Amino acid sequence: MKLLYPTSLELDVDSFKGFATTYHAYNVKELIPEDLIDAEILITWTNTAENLKDAASRMKNIKWIQSLAAGPNDVFSAGFSKSITVTTGSSLHDYTVAEHTLALLLNAARRFFEMRDFQVQAKWPQHLGGPQPDRPKGKFTSLRGANVLIWGFGNIAKTLTPHLVSLGSTVTGVARSAGIRNGVQVIDETQLDEQLRKTDALVMILPGSDSTMNVLNKERLALLPNHAWVVNVGRGTSIDEEALADALESGQIGGAALDVFVKEPLQQESRLWKTPNTIISPHAAGGRPQGSEGLIAENLRRFMAGQELKNVA
Amino acid sequence: MKLLYPTSLELDVDSFKGFATTYHAYNVKELIPEDLIDAEILITWTNTAENLKDAASRMKNIKWIQSLAAGPNDVFSAGFSKSITVTTGSSLHDYTVAEHTLALLLNAARRFFEMRDFQVQAKWPQHLGGPQPDRPKGKFTSLRGANVLIWGFGNIAKTLTPHLVSLGSTVTGVARSAGIRNGVQVIDETQLDEQLRKTDALVMILPGSDSTMNVLNKERLALLPNHAWVVNVGRGTSIDEEALADALESGQIGGAALDVFVKEPLQQESRLWKTPNTIISPHAAGGRPQGSEGLIAENLRRFMAGQELKNVA
Repeated sequence: MKLLYPTSLELDVDSFKGFATTYHAYNVKELIPEDLIDAEILITWTNTAENLKDAASRMKNIKWIQSLAAGPNDVFSAGFSKSITVTTGSSLHDYTVAEHTLALLLNAARRFFEMRDFQVQAKWPQHLGGPQPDRPKGKFTSLRGANVLIWGFGNIAKTLTPHLVSLGSTVTGVARSAGIRNGVQVIDETQLDEQLRKTDALVMILPGSDSTMNVLNKERLALLPNHAWVVNVGRGTSIDEEALADALESGQIGGAALDVFVKEPLQQESRLWKTPNTIISPHAAGGRPQGSEGLIAENLRRFMAGQELKNVA
Repeated sequence: MKLLYPTSLELDVDSFKGFATTYHAYNVKELIPEDLIDAEILITWTNTAENLKDAASRMKNIKWIQSLAAGPNDVFSAGFSKSITVTTGSSLHDYTVAEHTLALLLNAARRFFEMRDFQVQAKWPQHLGGPQPDRPKGKFTSLRGANVLIWGFGNIAKTLTPHLVSLGSTVTGVARSAGIRNGVQVIDETQLDEQLRKTDALVMILPGSDSTMNVLNKERLALLPNHAWVVNVGRGTSIDEEALADALESGQIGGAALDVFVKEPLQQESRLWKTPNTIISPHAAGGRPQGSEGLIAENLRRFMAGQELKNVA
């Protein structure tokens, strides 16, 4: 049995050794070398499309692909046989995306983006400092006392929520089925309109799929209070970007902090670069898996034991 | 007995009623009116220097001044008799300053200031997004696993610390006496040099006084690793600003996120506007007391009962 692991990230290979397999490093930017082409297990991270397409056609023994990405669209579109098990790196990005989301929320509340525009002109933004009203109505200025609505209540949301709660926010989730999860009230889409009206910050952590396409549309944006911020760290396709740009330009919402976009890099001609109260982050929330070795070791053990793998896509 | 409360912030006056005193609103930007000049108790918030100087000379019955500021320098320099008790609003700013400090740390780690400079040019900063190494050595990119040193371990530090710990940082405090406080290791200045060498982010929360003047000087800055960030939310005078600007320009430290300065507003000619990896925040961390009514009610009760007041300056 041969396992191929990528050199595109630092892996402590020793921490998934001990199984009846041999371990071989490979370069994800080149074609798989002839002597490794008979491998049964492939671990992927930032492989080129050429590498994956070639692997799909030449690796005849492959049985399992462990991607370290949360959504391994690259593997799915490479043409591998449907009989191959693909597992995702979903849990490996929970902390990093949660930290970035918290950072985006605080940047929005504390208006660092606006401070920066003053700084580069060597100007002191007096209106943002000194004595000021505490959490005035109709403004999002603090996580304390804020109603944060998280649309897409999976692992990332569950990692983020305790930080928001300890900072004083009231967190509500939105998912396919309503209920209490990890002590948080999770509503379904039938209750969404009502909840949007009470939201100070809407955090979108939805995967990209047909069912999430443009779910934050013009009508739903119109339900948000004028001071509400929209944060997106899921997939760009879940927001109608033109409707969002309209809402920002008209002041219908308070602002948007966006890490993901329909097209990435964000196109030069996008209105979102210049809409008011907009923070553009270059898909920087995740992108650095943490704890990959633990997931590989656990799935390798299950694979060798003939058990069901974790994170089957 | 007369108590004067300011109209410069929203106060729920009902929540400190019930004592044998009358309650009178006053305008902090004007002189105290003749019919209120015999008041025994004065609550201050953003009073003008003229208002306080005039009050000091005309209010002959005054016994107690409750400032809502953390450091009521304005009251001290107004010329009130030394026999008058002055109490501070120290605890009222713990949350807001802690939240701002957390926001500055995350802005530094996630480099939103740099992203903004790209955004205003409609440019996508590819080097800040996409796949990247996880917490590479020699960079401050996350609070997870970071050594955060908090110099000045009072209420604000104690409010901030649990958030940092839950995000995965190792927090150490620096104070006049060493020990374990709130479960955090607090060192004194004899151990400071050694700790600076291991620090990823140094948070300064020191009050302004002769003993804290320029304590972060050239020699101590030189002990920090090249990737370390300095965050200051205490008083500007605790840092030698020229030495800091030198350290930023030479790349001796990773960056600085500053909310306070020796002279505020920061002078147009300061080098700090343009030094690399510098975040300028316009004394915006606090400035909005929270829970003033509770402190006033508690101190009013103690005052009426002839007991020692809280937060005596």
